[in-house]
Amino acid sequence: MRTQVAIIGSGPSGLLLGQLLAGIGVETIILERSSREHVLGRVRAGVLEQGTVDLLGEAGAAGRLHAEGLPHSGISLAFDGRLHRIDLTALTGGRHVTVYGQTEVTHDLMDKREAAGSVTVYETSKVALHDFDGASPFVTYDKDGATHRIDCDFIAGCDGYHGVSRRSAPEGALKTFERQYPFGWLGVLAQVPPADPELVYANHERGFALCSMRSPQRSRYYVQVPADERVEAWSDERFWDELRRRLPPRTAAAVTTGPSFEKSIAPLRSFVAEPMRFGRLFLVGDAAHIVPPTGAKGLNLAASDVRYLFAGLREFFSDRSQAGLDAYSAKALARVWKAVRFSWWMTTMLHRFPETGEFGQRIQEAELDYLVHSKAASTALAENYVGLPY
Amino acid sequence: MRTQVAIIGSGPSGLLLGQLLAGIGVETIILERSSREHVLGRVRAGVLEQGTVDLLGEAGAAGRLHAEGLPHSGISLAFDGRLHRIDLTALTGGRHVTVYGQTEVTHDLMDKREAAGSVTVYETSKVALHDFDGASPFVTYDKDGATHRIDCDFIAGCDGYHGVSRRSAPEGALKTFERQYPFGWLGVLAQVPPADPELVYANHERGFALCSMRSPQRSRYYVQVPADERVEAWSDERFWDELRRRLPPRTAAAVTTGPSFEKSIAPLRSFVAEPMRFGRLFLVGDAAHIVPPTGAKGLNLAASDVRYLFAGLREFFSDRSQAGLDAYSAKALARVWKAVRFSWWMTTMLHRFPETGEFGQRIQEAELDYLVHSKAASTALAENYVGLPY
Repeated sequence: MRTQVAIIGSGPSGLLLGQLLAGIGVETIILERSSREHVLGRVRAGVLEQGTVDLLGEAGAAGRLHAEGLPHSGISLAFDGRLHRIDLTALTGGRHVTVYGQTEVTHDLMDKREAAGSVTVYETSKVALHDFDGASPFVTYDKDGATHRIDCDFIAGCDGYHGVSRRSAPEGALKTFERQYPFGWLGVLAQVPPADPELVYANHERGFALCSMRSPQRSRYYVQVPADERVEAWSDERFWDELRRRLPPRTAAAVTTGPSFEKSIAPLRSFVAEPMRFGRLFLVGDAAHIVPPTGAKGLNLAASDVRYLFAGLREFFSDRSQAGLDAYSAKALARVWKAVRFSWWMTTMLHRFPETGEFGQRIQEAELDYLVHSKAASTALAENYVGLPY
Repeated sequence: MRTQVAIIGSGPSGLLLGQLLAGIGVETIILERSSREHVLGRVRAGVLEQGTVDLLGEAGAAGRLHAEGLPHSGISLAFDGRLHRIDLTALTGGRHVTVYGQTEVTHDLMDKREAAGSVTVYETSKVALHDFDGASPFVTYDKDGATHRIDCDFIAGCDGYHGVSRRSAPEGALKTFERQYPFGWLGVLAQVPPADPELVYANHERGFALCSMRSPQRSRYYVQVPADERVEAWSDERFWDELRRRLPPRTAAAVTTGPSFEKSIAPLRSFVAEPMRFGRLFLVGDAAHIVPPTGAKGLNLAASDVRYLFAGLREFFSDRSQAGLDAYSAKALARVWKAVRFSWWMTTMLHRFPETGEFGQRIQEAELDYLVHSKAASTALAENYVGLPY
């Protein structure tokens, strides 16, 4: 088989890149390790920057998003027993974020891809990337007991942190930066209306909590737990009790409980791999960088990588210019590091860190107090939350 | 002897409080452990917020300050080989800071005090604070081989971190918060014109450096050194070489070297004691809190304590109202913690922390890059640097 761009991974970044390329007549094949159902079953982020929404629109996949997505013009920080609202829209000259589950984004993009007749090969194994340091890269994989080969012009590594793409970088060519946080998020999805119409980020002496949602009928809640916590230790009842203890009284009283239909613990981590390009292989999204979810940046950062890579590929296929591709890694990383910093800062300000002691806790309280009372500081949070310029 | 307010410590906060009280006809006696010459020989901070300048004016001690102080409308952050200027005045609606050595402030206040005939007792020992939990506190001290007693209405503890005042707080009544930084500042004072007309804060892979000044002919420079460094290891030549290596090329080239006439290493520390009042004893400035000098907040924070305490004492002596005194600790601490946070943040962003590794260094670079390119973030720095509202 031959294609122009082989895309590794059928998550939102791979699918989005595929649709954008299809729009300019560039062929792609996506190789995915899991089944279609497994990909769609992943529960992930749900807050989209305007730039991400725009890019999904450019890919022709924003119809349902525009109909069902919830525009949010603010978030609240909860501390000291009450909510302090950050008016994102007023502080950023009219911008907002859109709450729409990543699962739905994936669904919409898959539907578009299938309607266009582009090829996605699911349940592949032994994917290997070859010769991307030259002009004729190819990808091999096993499927149904046979080994297959795809020749291509470029390979886009959209296969996440655990994927093969980053691991395929030449020995010694990759520099990585990492921070592990001493806690994780226990998340629950439940078919109940959210406690607050907007997201609530709570700093509490018992630990961080987040009230989020997927729709007006579906809530997504999180509580900070120790890194080694086991999900089995958390009955629904225990979760709801703990959540409410960490929220201001009025917000706690507004929590509607119900049976969880997804409950899991995710570790928090910051990770960046540099560079994001190796010859004709490009790393995109989680394949190159992970942020803790506190700033709602993971999916948006993947989308901004896709934006830069798409611009470079379009330039190449239309003008045979390498300039955009040559600039990809530096451009993408400049925005990545800003989001990594923002996510680290939000995480540091909102979670309990046992090792920083009471001084650290007071610094958090002083920072939150300053933040909600300073227009400049609130604006700095808001402009990062809605998404910095490309 | 009897006075209305016994002030422990003849540094700028004790002297300033004394002059303000003198202005409303309230008598004070200052007890100082050291000699007058020793107090005047201390080399300390040199950047005054507008509010500090105003308060010195209210105390009638700003004549020379207005004539000789250097108004600064900006500072520069140095990283990535060049200067990035923060226009304090443009970002804060016209405010600025004034460079004027703390030694000069002390000198001016002492001159005023002496002209007014107020009493300062130097070279006291065995100072002890008594009965401040009741209505009739008194202070005892030894001087010239005899023990003396001063009866008073109130005691102001302006005697710094190592003074007797904080140590006099009742057993268990004091809660302290502390952060030690794994480095100190090696500072040099030299009779040479400064490398830059404004302050330059440099983040460099070899460590932090600061270009500061006391006057157009007198420079004050600092470099970050390990906490256990010995000043004897630093010849003038080594200092100038190291300083220039940490500065952008143009700034380094503008450094005029010369013999140092003061060279010392100061550890960096954040410290807060709560509360700041125990009956009729009030802690002021360094007696209650220490900030690392990176944000130029130490002296200014002492002045803001003095402002709050003076307001409370004035209310008491004119109206016999305790309201201002009752509010002192909470009001002062609210502003203290904001300055502690700002100083901690500036320190964290600008110094090398070996323990945070390469990830931490990249976070610093991303933060600096964001900071100088975001008006909101620059404004947040600027409004803290010129001084938050009282």
